[in-house]
Amino acid sequence: MPKQSESALAQLRRSHEERVLTLLRKHGALSRREIGDLSGLSRTTLHDIISGLAARGAVVSMTQDSISRGRGRPAESVALNPAAGQAIGIDFARRHVHVAVVNMAHEVIGSADRVHPATLPWTKRVELAEQMIAELAEGAIRLGALTGIGVGVVGPVAGSGQEGAVRRLDVVSQLLRKRFGVPVLVDNNTRLAALGESVWGAAIGCQDVVYLRLSHGVGGGLVLGGSLHRGAYGISGEFGHTTVDPEGAACRCGGRGCLETVASVKALAAAHRAAGGRPGGFAGLLAAVEDGEDRALDLLTRAGALTGQVLAGVCNAVGPGLVVIGGELAEFGPAFLRPVEAALRKHVIPTARGRLRVRPAALGDAGAALGAIALVLHESPLLARYPSVPDTEETEERDNS
Amino acid sequence: MPKQSESALAQLRRSHEERVLTLLRKHGALSRREIGDLSGLSRTTLHDIISGLAARGAVVSMTQDSISRGRGRPAESVALNPAAGQAIGIDFARRHVHVAVVNMAHEVIGSADRVHPATLPWTKRVELAEQMIAELAEGAIRLGALTGIGVGVVGPVAGSGQEGAVRRLDVVSQLLRKRFGVPVLVDNNTRLAALGESVWGAAIGCQDVVYLRLSHGVGGGLVLGGSLHRGAYGISGEFGHTTVDPEGAACRCGGRGCLETVASVKALAAAHRAAGGRPGGFAGLLAAVEDGEDRALDLLTRAGALTGQVLAGVCNAVGPGLVVIGGELAEFGPAFLRPVEAALRKHVIPTARGRLRVRPAALGDAGAALGAIALVLHESPLLARYPSVPDTEETEERDNS
Repeated sequence: MPKQSESALAQLRRSHEERVLTLLRKHGALSRREIGDLSGLSRTTLHDIISGLAARGAVVSMTQDSISRGRGRPAESVALNPAAGQAIGIDFARRHVHVAVVNMAHEVIGSADRVHPATLPWTKRVELAEQMIAELAEGAIRLGALTGIGVGVVGPVAGSGQEGAVRRLDVVSQLLRKRFGVPVLVDNNTRLAALGESVWGAAIGCQDVVYLRLSHGVGGGLVLGGSLHRGAYGISGEFGHTTVDPEGAACRCGGRGCLETVASVKALAAAHRAAGGRPGGFAGLLAAVEDGEDRALDLLTRAGALTGQVLAGVCNAVGPGLVVIGGELAEFGPAFLRPVEAALRKHVIPTARGRLRVRPAALGDAGAALGAIALVLHESPLLARYPSVPDTEETEERDNS
Repeated sequence: MPKQSESALAQLRRSHEERVLTLLRKHGALSRREIGDLSGLSRTTLHDIISGLAARGAVVSMTQDSISRGRGRPAESVALNPAAGQAIGIDFARRHVHVAVVNMAHEVIGSADRVHPATLPWTKRVELAEQMIAELAEGAIRLGALTGIGVGVVGPVAGSGQEGAVRRLDVVSQLLRKRFGVPVLVDNNTRLAALGESVWGAAIGCQDVVYLRLSHGVGGGLVLGGSLHRGAYGISGEFGHTTVDPEGAACRCGGRGCLETVASVKALAAAHRAAGGRPGGFAGLLAAVEDGEDRALDLLTRAGALTGQVLAGVCNAVGPGLVVIGGELAEFGPAFLRPVEAALRKHVIPTARGRLRVRPAALGDAGAALGAIALVLHESPLLARYPSVPDTEETEERDNS
């Protein structure tokens, strides 16, 4: 048999296998029918490809019980072999480092969180992350199987014109790349939390998701078609700086009356104090809401209504299937989320009114670290070219001929 | 040589050829270097694939002069053979039918526009379109080479819950499919105008585009990653119904103070008359603006500022590289567009301020018909499986062996 044709057959098979592996990387466990629908491969070809991958240990069959993704799956699903690779996600937030490790079957196999002063230098933060990873490695993770590290950071990431910020990121990436010898992918941690919620959290199975995070700052992210949407200059999901009150307070962005000036931790605490509420800042407001004080509930109602109005504009533009709300303000529960939903329903176009659902975020502080892992599973260059399967097809083809 | 391997070689080649053809369908003419970058195929493989396609008449080399796309291209580009297929776009607007025909090299080879009463029944509109196509066919187009028909319609299209509207679309699609025997793809005509501008108009070469159309109604569309973004329920690009004045006029959507109530043809004409401006509705306002009357210019400044504010919210969320503004209001030129830009710059987050560009639409009323063609070129099932190349690889491979 001439060498050229043999290699073409192997190449074709490899391209089919890549198609299947890419789907499993992106979606986690899938039924054979789902793989067939998404790959466009015939049932016969698919049976052949999956058998081959399973025989080489690249994929495994999983039953409902062994799947920890939380989605209702049919009894038997195919997933990447959990042992075939691992990905690490690190979220460098303002005052804490969060680390999570996931295997190729999308199972979280370890996570850790460490608080530090906001002034801790970047080299020290990276050291802290390395130490946390080493501790996790003693437990579950095997660094030899590492396919990439995803990193979440505060603030804009690429092409944003803030050269200092970009240089700082380069340093962090290089330190981690040098230490672990795998690709390092960096993105804004709020955007990554959006991706995390869509892969592991409140928005599992949704292709188009608007994620809003109301914390000390207000930001968010878009997942469109199941992937992180970045925008032309890496600037997107900036829902906190839409004007809600042209006569309102000055915002750190240079604008006036931005959503962040009425629906953030600091803004609510200040408004509560100004209205004669109990002291204690945000904690005082939380307590007042728990006690059902009208003054506190009115504040949340107003902030929720303005938040819903901003979300309505975003939803009219983007048309998501689901809105996920995270950050401290989501922890007020219905006292905040109901006014958000009411205003959202009031302000979106009528055809969307009955459809739009709002859910609180499900992953808490782990969202960004998990999203960073999703970024690795979706985009790591190590995974793009057939990572988890030993390169033995040529031999096998020869054996069969 | 065993049959199986021979067929695998042909399949591999076919998959490479499909990759190249798909790129040329989406982007029009490309240089060899661009095809290499986008396809990931090696230079040698690419040379081989393009030579093969050219020998079979599927692609042609084009020099700068023969390319009418308006983009600055290098001296020699590769494009689909203009004679290898054609696509028709039909825009069924409220009071006119617009038809355009484009060949596989993305060249517009014919177009026509016909005005009709808004009450004309749908069967008559389809007949009118057929008649216009037949007239064009006598000239340039060859119906035998037709690969699909794209159709733009007013209002929401799929999954919007307006059953009557969806049934009406089914009728239109079926009539056209029966008459021409090719796939018919339908979408909202404002969204299609957005796609049209990104392929042939003001936003050529931009991957992420926000398109806003201010006419009798106010709507728009998003092109993200070079493709039309539809949203989870087929509802997106609804920029006209974001609240800009909570105390404002009632809107046909049931809301109050939507952008459409201050920045549409009807709203501006009414405001002009109410302010004591000259009669004549919108035409009167146009004349007043041309004469530089302060009262008229102030109206445009206010409408432009509120438009810019809504756009800022959308741009903060989506992060486009370019904003394109179409519809009658764009025809006021700088008197309207400057206030839009000023408000947009004022309200977007600082990092986006220096980057965001605003351009008037370039395709006028033809935008939606051209966008409908782009939809066919991007998504027609006839094109997805290797349409424009005769199925001769098997024979050729055998000849070579």
